[in-house]
Amino acid sequence: MMDTIFKHKTIRKYKNTPISDELLNQILEAGFRASTTGNMQVYSIIVTKDIEKKKQLCGMHFGQKMVEEAPVILTFCADFNRFNKWCKQRNAEPGYDNYLSFFTAAIDALLAAQNVALAAEANGLGICYLGTTTYQADKLVEFFNCPDGVVPITTLVVGYPDENPELVDRLPFKGIVHNETYKDYSATDIDEIYQEKESLPQTAELIKINELENLAQIFTQKRYSKKDNVHFSKQFLKVIEAQGFMNNID
Amino acid sequence: MMDTIFKHKTIRKYKNTPISDELLNQILEAGFRASTTGNMQVYSIIVTKDIEKKKQLCGMHFGQKMVEEAPVILTFCADFNRFNKWCKQRNAEPGYDNYLSFFTAAIDALLAAQNVALAAEANGLGICYLGTTTYQADKLVEFFNCPDGVVPITTLVVGYPDENPELVDRLPFKGIVHNETYKDYSATDIDEIYQEKESLPQTAELIKINELENLAQIFTQKRYSKKDNVHFSKQFLKVIEAQGFMNNID
Repeated sequence: MMDTIFKHKTIRKYKNTPISDELLNQILEAGFRASTTGNMQVYSIIVTKDIEKKKQLCGMHFGQKMVEEAPVILTFCADFNRFNKWCKQRNAEPGYDNYLSFFTAAIDALLAAQNVALAAEANGLGICYLGTTTYQADKLVEFFNCPDGVVPITTLVVGYPDENPELVDRLPFKGIVHNETYKDYSATDIDEIYQEKESLPQTAELIKINELENLAQIFTQKRYSKKDNVHFSKQFLKVIEAQGFMNNID
Repeated sequence: MMDTIFKHKTIRKYKNTPISDELLNQILEAGFRASTTGNMQVYSIIVTKDIEKKKQLCGMHFGQKMVEEAPVILTFCADFNRFNKWCKQRNAEPGYDNYLSFFTAAIDALLAAQNVALAAEANGLGICYLGTTTYQADKLVEFFNCPDGVVPITTLVVGYPDENPELVDRLPFKGIVHNETYKDYSATDIDEIYQEKESLPQTAELIKINELENLAQIFTQKRYSKKDNVHFSKQFLKVIEAQGFMNNID
C-alpha cells in the first residue's frame, strides 16, 4: 500500500493494450469500498471504452491525446438522482436539491475516485486525473445524458503506461501541515516552501520557454489565469444549478 | 493495497494509545503524494492532538465522542492562501478568488485525505470521516483561525481501533457503474439496487426504533432532512464567500 502511494506518478502516455473486464471490475469495486456520507453512495462512475466516444471526450478535455489513446476513461459524477428516485418510490420526500447535497455527493465521488486510482496503480496500471472535468461539466452532462441530480466532478484516464516519468516534486512538510491552529505564512516561510520547486531545472526551462520572470507568473498568466477561472466558475455554477442543486439558497 | 481497500471499515471507538510522530508523519506524507491540479497542492492539513482542543472540536462535530477520544484529528482544508501569497511575492497577480478555484482546492484536499485514510489503515490504524465539517465550516474557520482562501472540507478521526465492526453493505455494481452513457434507472432497477440494503436485519431494527415505514424515510426525516440541508447549504455557501471564493460570478 505505502509503496503504491509513494510511487504514484501521473501517466500521460498509454499503450493501447485493453484492460480485462475482470481487472476493470475489480478496480471499480475498490472504489465502492471508500467511505461515503451515511453510506448513501451518492455518486456514479461512467465507463468510456468506445473509440468514437473517446475521440469526442478527448475534444471536450481540451484535446489531451491520452483521452483517445488510453483504453478506459472513468468519469466520476456526484449523483443524487438514484437516491432521490429511491426515496420517491418509498413515500419519502427527498430534500437533496441544495448545495450541501451537491458537495456531499462530490466528496463521495472523489474519495471513490482516489480508491480506484490507487487500486489501478497497485495492479500495474497508470492513471491521470483530468481537471478539465469541472471546466467542461456542461458539455459532459449533455454528452453522457446526465439527468437532474448528476454532475461530473472528475475523470480518470486509466491504462498500461507507455512512459516511466520521474517522481514529481512536492512541497515540504511545513508547507502543508499545521499544528493545532493555522499558522499563517511569513514572507520567509513562503520563500522556503517554494524554494525546491523554483530551483528545479525544469522550472528554469519553463520560464525560458514562456519568456516570463518566474514560475508563479507561468501559473497566473499561462496555466490558470484569472480570465479562465472566472469563465469556468460561472459555467460550473450554472451546471450545479441546472442539475437541481441550487434551490432554497435565498 | 487491495486488501487494505477491501477491508476498510469506519471506526467509531478508539483506544487512547497515541500515534508515534514517525507514523503520523508517514501517513501525512502519503497524503502529499496524491495528485493535485497542476501540482499546486492547494490544500492544508491541520493536526489536532491537544486534549482541550479535541474537546472543543468534539462539540463542533455534534458531540461525536470519538473526536475527543481518538489521539489525532486531521482537518483537511481547501487552501489557496499559501499559493496566493507566493504569487504576490513573485510579482504575479493571482486569479484564484473564485468558485472554480475553491472547487479545485477542495478536490486536492479530498484526494489527499483518502491517501491519508488508506495509509493509516495499512498501518493498523482506524479512521472515520466527519461529514459535519462542511456543516460547521464557519465555526471551524474561527476555531483554527483560517485566513482568506482557506475552507475546511473534511475531517479524519485517526487512532488505534477499539472495536472490530463487520464490513458494511454496498450497492451492487449496476447501482454505481454506467457504460458509455448514463442509463437512467427504472422503478424495477431501483427496487433491485436497494433490495440488499433494505433487507438487512439492522435496517428492520432501525425502522422499528424510528417508528417509520422504511429506510428511505429514516434518511429523509431523521438523518439528512431537507430543513437541515437547506440550513447548512446557506451556511457553507456563506463560508465559501467569506473566505474569498465567490467573486466575479455575476
